[in-house]
Amino acid sequence: MIKVTLKDGSVKEFEAGVSILDIAKGISEGLARNALCGMVNDKVVDLRYILNEDAEVAICTFDSQEGKDALRHTASHVLAYAVKRLFPEAKIAIGPAIENGFYYDFDKENAFSAEDLEKIEAEMKKIVKENPQIERFELPRNEALELMKDEPYKVELINDLPEGEIISFYKIGDFTDLCAGPHIMALKPIKAIKLLRSAGAYWKGDEKNKMLSRIYGTAFLKAKDLEEHLEALEEAKKRDHNKLGRELKLFMTDEKVGQGLPLLMPKGAKIVQVLQRWIEDEEEKRGYILTKTPLMAKSDLYKVSGHWDHYKDGMFVLGDEEKDDEVLALRPMTCPFQYTIYNAEQHSYRDLPLRYAETSTLFRNEASGEMHGLIRVRQFTLADGHLVVTPEQLEDEFRGVVDLINYVMTTLGIEKDITYRFSKWDPKNKEKYIDNPEAWESTQDIMRNILNHLGINYVEADDEAAFYGPKLDIQFKNVHGKEDTIITVQIDFALAERFNMTYVDKNGDKKLPYIIHRSSIGCYERTLAMLIEKYAGALPTWLAPVQVKLLPISDKYNDYADEVIRSLRNSGVRVEGDFRAEKIGYKIREARLERAPYIIVVGEKEANEKSVSVRSRKNGDEGSMNFEEFKARLLKEIETKEI
Amino acid sequence: MIKVTLKDGSVKEFEAGVSILDIAKGISEGLARNALCGMVNDKVVDLRYILNEDAEVAICTFDSQEGKDALRHTASHVLAYAVKRLFPEAKIAIGPAIENGFYYDFDKENAFSAEDLEKIEAEMKKIVKENPQIERFELPRNEALELMKDEPYKVELINDLPEGEIISFYKIGDFTDLCAGPHIMALKPIKAIKLLRSAGAYWKGDEKNKMLSRIYGTAFLKAKDLEEHLEALEEAKKRDHNKLGRELKLFMTDEKVGQGLPLLMPKGAKIVQVLQRWIEDEEEKRGYILTKTPLMAKSDLYKVSGHWDHYKDGMFVLGDEEKDDEVLALRPMTCPFQYTIYNAEQHSYRDLPLRYAETSTLFRNEASGEMHGLIRVRQFTLADGHLVVTPEQLEDEFRGVVDLINYVMTTLGIEKDITYRFSKWDPKNKEKYIDNPEAWESTQDIMRNILNHLGINYVEADDEAAFYGPKLDIQFKNVHGKEDTIITVQIDFALAERFNMTYVDKNGDKKLPYIIHRSSIGCYERTLAMLIEKYAGALPTWLAPVQVKLLPISDKYNDYADEVIRSLRNSGVRVEGDFRAEKIGYKIREARLERAPYIIVVGEKEANEKSVSVRSRKNGDEGSMNFEEFKARLLKEIETKEI
Repeated sequence: MIKVTLKDGSVKEFEAGVSILDIAKGISEGLARNALCGMVNDKVVDLRYILNEDAEVAICTFDSQEGKDALRHTASHVLAYAVKRLFPEAKIAIGPAIENGFYYDFDKENAFSAEDLEKIEAEMKKIVKENPQIERFELPRNEALELMKDEPYKVELINDLPEGEIISFYKIGDFTDLCAGPHIMALKPIKAIKLLRSAGAYWKGDEKNKMLSRIYGTAFLKAKDLEEHLEALEEAKKRDHNKLGRELKLFMTDEKVGQGLPLLMPKGAKIVQVLQRWIEDEEEKRGYILTKTPLMAKSDLYKVSGHWDHYKDGMFVLGDEEKDDEVLALRPMTCPFQYTIYNAEQHSYRDLPLRYAETSTLFRNEASGEMHGLIRVRQFTLADGHLVVTPEQLEDEFRGVVDLINYVMTTLGIEKDITYRFSKWDPKNKEKYIDNPEAWESTQDIMRNILNHLGINYVEADDEAAFYGPKLDIQFKNVHGKEDTIITVQIDFALAERFNMTYVDKNGDKKLPYIIHRSSIGCYERTLAMLIEKYAGALPTWLAPVQVKLLPISDKYNDYADEVIRSLRNSGVRVEGDFRAEKIGYKIREARLERAPYIIVVGEKEANEKSVSVRSRKNGDEGSMNFEEFKARLLKEIETKEI
Repeated sequence: MIKVTLKDGSVKEFEAGVSILDIAKGISEGLARNALCGMVNDKVVDLRYILNEDAEVAICTFDSQEGKDALRHTASHVLAYAVKRLFPEAKIAIGPAIENGFYYDFDKENAFSAEDLEKIEAEMKKIVKENPQIERFELPRNEALELMKDEPYKVELINDLPEGEIISFYKIGDFTDLCAGPHIMALKPIKAIKLLRSAGAYWKGDEKNKMLSRIYGTAFLKAKDLEEHLEALEEAKKRDHNKLGRELKLFMTDEKVGQGLPLLMPKGAKIVQVLQRWIEDEEEKRGYILTKTPLMAKSDLYKVSGHWDHYKDGMFVLGDEEKDDEVLALRPMTCPFQYTIYNAEQHSYRDLPLRYAETSTLFRNEASGEMHGLIRVRQFTLADGHLVVTPEQLEDEFRGVVDLINYVMTTLGIEKDITYRFSKWDPKNKEKYIDNPEAWESTQDIMRNILNHLGINYVEADDEAAFYGPKLDIQFKNVHGKEDTIITVQIDFALAERFNMTYVDKNGDKKLPYIIHRSSIGCYERTLAMLIEKYAGALPTWLAPVQVKLLPISDKYNDYADEVIRSLRNSGVRVEGDFRAEKIGYKIREARLERAPYIIVVGEKEANEKSVSVRSRKNGDEGSMNFEEFKARLLKEIETKEI
């Protein structure tokens, strides 16, 4: 007999050799019916898995990510099965479950057309209906290679497996695939399948390899859930900043300018200007002092900072060290420049904390294939800053930084959309990190303590630190579910020493300060993308590039319209008149498409009464109101940064 | 007999073969006594010059630049004479008159020390007292080479002279120098000499050549004028932004960051922030729309604009066209980027004029020897902009640009320090300009007409245009008398066609617009330098990085001081408290050195009365006044940008 500890802590006894499916049945018949896979000591396994010793066991249904993944992973095999039936010449590569779905990569002469996808989806449904057997088996390497001899990508994968690794296969009907599992027991639970799109993808994600054809799909237990998911996808597409931001003329890209180098058009530049001034002013209120430092420097500076050793591949370098007297590089970070300013004079403990801020343009030499809208770019402007602090000030200053970030996120209305990640080094990654294990451990301990004190709810992540210290990352999910880091706060234990930055303490001794690297809003391009997606382009009034769209009923009221525009502009409101000789209904529809928070219409009644007819994005048609009252309400909404 | 037309238009007759000196005598003995050189048909000549035909003649005294130059040029020969007497091994190179003085370059093993300069100056005075003869003579090339055989630089100069050129010499006592002249008749008028400093200078200004030792000096007719000039030089040194700007902690440079890449420290960055916001807001009021475009682009873009052909040497290029798929370059100008935004949609005549503005960081790959403070830099931020206009709008829009510049210059208080230059192309410089003589001539005519209409008082300059069109340059002289262009307004006849920028006119036809390239305040780094020099660091209150320095008499009044600081900060005033336990007199002296417009002291009386004791930069000690009254006055001064 073996002891099985369940998720609720209870312990059940089973005979050794029991399957996970039988354990599920032992708990309840209902659970066994819904079970899709299991977990043994935190490792995901098939329901087929045989247990021979004591273990912690969990049964996973579609409610868990593991259950969803198992079902969708099996669906990806059904996809490959269908493709092999319809296109026997296609070679199969890999097919994992991913967040919200699955994909499978094929090597096929022509890309899959939309009609192909329809046919394949129909074939998949047919296969599910046929309800074939699913079997798992293992083979020694030579037999595995023999079995897969017509599938070159599988051969490569088998050859990549380390000596001694179990080589397992899953067979669905007459389709056999090399696979580590897990898979569900039968195809029956796959009730709702949808193939979404096909796209190119390099074999093993490496652009030096062949481009394969990837088919994305998803699968659910219930048709209704699939439908809801597809609707959410449609909604996400509409919100996608890379689409909507262009439609709203906030930004553009251009082939001749280059990839990852978006141009902010007047409306996008206006939003960024409003954000930058707000952040610069808020930081000034909180005791930050602004610097403005050059966007390039000689390699000498980056050699001191360590960027030359740890970050050179990500930098744009001007010149060649072999040939040129002087090699310059565009800056990937602001730190060495603000440290240079710190070092312009000898500081005393009385000067600290010193909080340097800069609206800082930075450059990253990214591969052009990885560019995306305003999110993956080669040049961006970060609300950057560095706090030089004594050890005693570290926690208070860290708290101040987190408080500022919370204020910014709350004001933008995205405080509920973010999560925190505590990013640590990886002792094995010698190239990426400064080699000082003791300092890493002690600084990570300090940071963990501070985070716990502040009551921040964070996850820990290895190998995500900066090269000079651990980070607190503020994470945001974009409309496609992809998580990005929007802000980081870093404790730097290394660079003060490298730059010989000191302060004189109370006893007259020179000491090394700690440095906090931080942002408050992150980089403005990414913030703009995030806001577009969060608000589907309908930005809060204080951020809207055009706050009021003013439409005169006919050109008889142009004078009054001009008067209203002048009055609003003098109060700092961004107002645009639409004086075209178009029907009023048409002009209102266009203004709505531009997401103007307020559309005001003026005609005879308004001109006589000094009123305006208001349509607000929030309340719809509000009818006529006194102009001065409207203006006061608008100014208050802007002033208080109402969301 | 020949006819001599004098400056006042009168005509006198002289015998052919008359000297300029005799002509001067013929006008008046007094004029002859003061004459230093002459002009014959606008060419400067010796008083020794013999006239054999009708000509326009002017007599130059020390009141004219030509007279000053002749005296100082002769003084430079006296300098060389003195050096050869004291250091016979020194080889002589060249020695011209320059603005406000003269120099002579020597090849000598050791640089000249301060003591050397004193000795040389004394020797020069001795030579002047000896009153040696000054003779001019000419030699054929072979004899000239023989005479100068011990002076290798003179030999090189003689060999550089084109065939047929007259080779002339001047002999002062027993010192003979190769020289085209002109020189004065005797050393007597050189009454007040001063050697200023020595510095390294490359032979022929080329860094590949040997570094020579240059001695700078100046000479006047009267000791009093020399004294005044030396005082002005001292004053200029104190105002020199490259010295004062560092002392006031506005900017710094750093060897590891590199030359021409100044770092704006918090106080300098604050001034630039205030200027930038002011200009962005003023431009918005005047109908400009802001863009924010990338700082680099692929070579493809610069090939369209012509920068690749006409400006590549001045650009920082990333990569190598021979080797790399993609070559990027940092932008030297904003135009191609704003044109790309214009081209994002088809415009109609109804959209024009379109006034694009950008606070635009630009890069110029300048040789490192040419860098100077905030004025000659490799990276700078320009208040840039481009107006896309129909031909009918060109004059009005040009006028609007000039009006904006006048407003900006007047608000900064430098409207009287600027001059205008109309910069034209040079048909001979094929490499620099777009080759379209017809368009050049017609655009220059248009621009000249506009300038005349506007009543602008300008000088014309050849070979100073942009490669795509003529410019109006706004010129400013720095403290050393060196003139710099701070702003340009250009009419571009070429790039709209190259970029295929069109608008649809009233008849539905596609037309090419004109484009005005312009700035409003120039680049912020240079503006900062100019303001430091203009105001000797004591910037108008609205621009001062610290507007109020608050000094409590003792720490008993820190609470009240804090209250005052909080109240001022809440109103947006930049105030700094000095809470150090130092004597109040010491703190006041330090605050003065920082050029704070207002120093306010608070003690018991002030705390009780809610008043402040005010020392203003303008009025000195103003005694106690009610705090709220002081604040209101201060806010008004800032609001109205009082100078």
